Amino acid sequence: MKRTIALLALLIIPCTQAAESRPPSQIIAEAPAEHWRPADPQNTLYLDLENGRVIIELAEFMAPGHVANIKALARERFYDGLSVYRVVEGFVAQGGDMDGDKPTGKAKRTIPAEFSQENPTHRFTPLPGPDGYAPQTGFIGGFPAARDPQTDETWLVHCNGAFAMAREQDIDSGGTEFYAVIGPTQRYLDRNTTVFGRVLDGMEVLQQLQRGTEAGGILEKPENNRIVRLRVAADLPEKERKALEVLRTDSPSFEELIAARRNRPEGWFVARPGYVDVCSVGIPGRATTDHQSKP
Amino acid sequence: MKRTIALLALLIIPCTQAAESRPPSQIIAEAPAEHWRPADPQNTLYLDLENGRVIIELAEFMAPGHVANIKALARERFYDGLSVYRVVEGFVAQGGDMDGDKPTGKAKRTIPAEFSQENPTHRFTPLPGPDGYAPQTGFIGGFPAARDPQTDETWLVHCNGAFAMAREQDIDSGGTEFYAVIGPTQRYLDRNTTVFGRVLDGMEVLQQLQRGTEAGGILEKPENNRIVRLRVAADLPEKERKALEVLRTDSPSFEELIAARRNRPEGWFVARPGYVDVCSVGIPGRATTDHQSKP
Repeated sequence: MKRTIALLALLIIPCTQAAESRPPSQIIAEAPAEHWRPADPQNTLYLDLENGRVIIELAEFMAPGHVANIKALARERFYDGLSVYRVVEGFVAQGGDMDGDKPTGKAKRTIPAEFSQENPTHRFTPLPGPDGYAPQTGFIGGFPAARDPQTDETWLVHCNGAFAMAREQDIDSGGTEFYAVIGPTQRYLDRNTTVFGRVLDGMEVLQQLQRGTEAGGILEKPENNRIVRLRVAADLPEKERKALEVLRTDSPSFEELIAARRNRPEGWFVARPGYVDVCSVGIPGRATTDHQSKP
Repeated sequence: MKRTIALLALLIIPCTQAAESRPPSQIIAEAPAEHWRPADPQNTLYLDLENGRVIIELAEFMAPGHVANIKALARERFYDGLSVYRVVEGFVAQGGDMDGDKPTGKAKRTIPAEFSQENPTHRFTPLPGPDGYAPQTGFIGGFPAARDPQTDETWLVHCNGAFAMAREQDIDSGGTEFYAVIGPTQRYLDRNTTVFGRVLDGMEVLQQLQRGTEAGGILEKPENNRIVRLRVAADLPEKERKALEVLRTDSPSFEELIAARRNRPEGWFVARPGYVDVCSVGIPGRATTDHQSKP
């Protein structure tokens, strides 16, 4: 396995690391229990596709209307049997009711835009350094975000894994057609659509979907990417759930992780820009059993 | 198809567009023939996996040693039957000789680092606006790049699709274990490894590979991601090749594309940051037959 040492060096703990600057892997492994929070099953979606499960955490505190409505749609079984009908390599996977004619019950077809919040309830953890798209970037409630410090306007940003709502020309026209960013960041979409969650687990399931070949990346046979079901995690029996925890983005461990990502250790790294962008920090998650099974 | 209008608006030509600011799709469609260049079959690799073909353009002008050596390795059939043994979701797919014991012929196992060039032969097209990782970003010879304007040191950057060489602690220790970025940008790796190409076609083939579950993302059964063969395109009969063209990054069409990506049209876009990062511009490519078949 000699040759594999190369990039592995980025993931394991260098022996020469000084005690006061721990590498990311160690920060995450040693983060105390109170720096983690469980992903709330009431704000978690399970998107079950033919090839596996995608787990999405919903940002109720940022987009309460969208979160309440997609949960209502899930509980009406709205998405079951529909499809992820638009998949563009390096861009998005979009699903829902392509034809726009499936009836809903009490859930709505459109929800007023929730592109940003003026006074968000959660604390914003700023990221140092420049950003071309926003006055300030950082993290809020476990999501990558941006902010205007002058007005406190705060919004979630389009990193890989962002879960958002497609819309037509009218900013309030979205409500059922969700998309996930499956490629590099799509930051130019920030504040143009409502980002209301992010994929916690199962990105590889989305990546395995068939790409569309029709105009705009629509599939010729959308049924090839069939949605088996979309459920609120809390509505499934506990034994059918995967308990996940997310490192709190307002915790000292996460602050230390930001610093470690900005300042890579000398040694393997010979070029060290002293910078990390908001989409490259990575918000650690883990299955609850991962650490409970350890002594 | 009513609901699909939403994000499609980003891809089609808005009717309200002023003649002097064409949208990206139109700039690309109307680019004159001399703004395109064929991908040179002598600097193109075909990485054939069980599930399809990945086409990689090599940047000989930036990393001549690495390009010459991987072509020599391909011509010795070095990679045939090896595997893409390390696949980490949102990060990289790495392939080659995991055990490090397969003999080579005249090709070398290690090549001195070619992280950057002091005086590159091709013209650098700068991108306006800030970048946290480098003094200046832009494009050179069809590749996303960065540059220090004071020294003219220029290097290729780790966008999605970047094709680079893994290494161990010694900067000159890489030579056979290639990796492709399959997730968001990994810009902190810039100038820490030799980037010597980019994926022109078949990213979805890489995305469909099995992820590794062992430490560092190594596959338990690397043979599941077997490399059928790695070939220089020029070595295959013409009828087995896919002729590709790339929009010249030093052409007026590409300059106009940069401007269009920075300044999205009013209308669907309500938030317009007037900025685009180097990994979000996208360098257009097309199959030669795409346009030849049109009148």
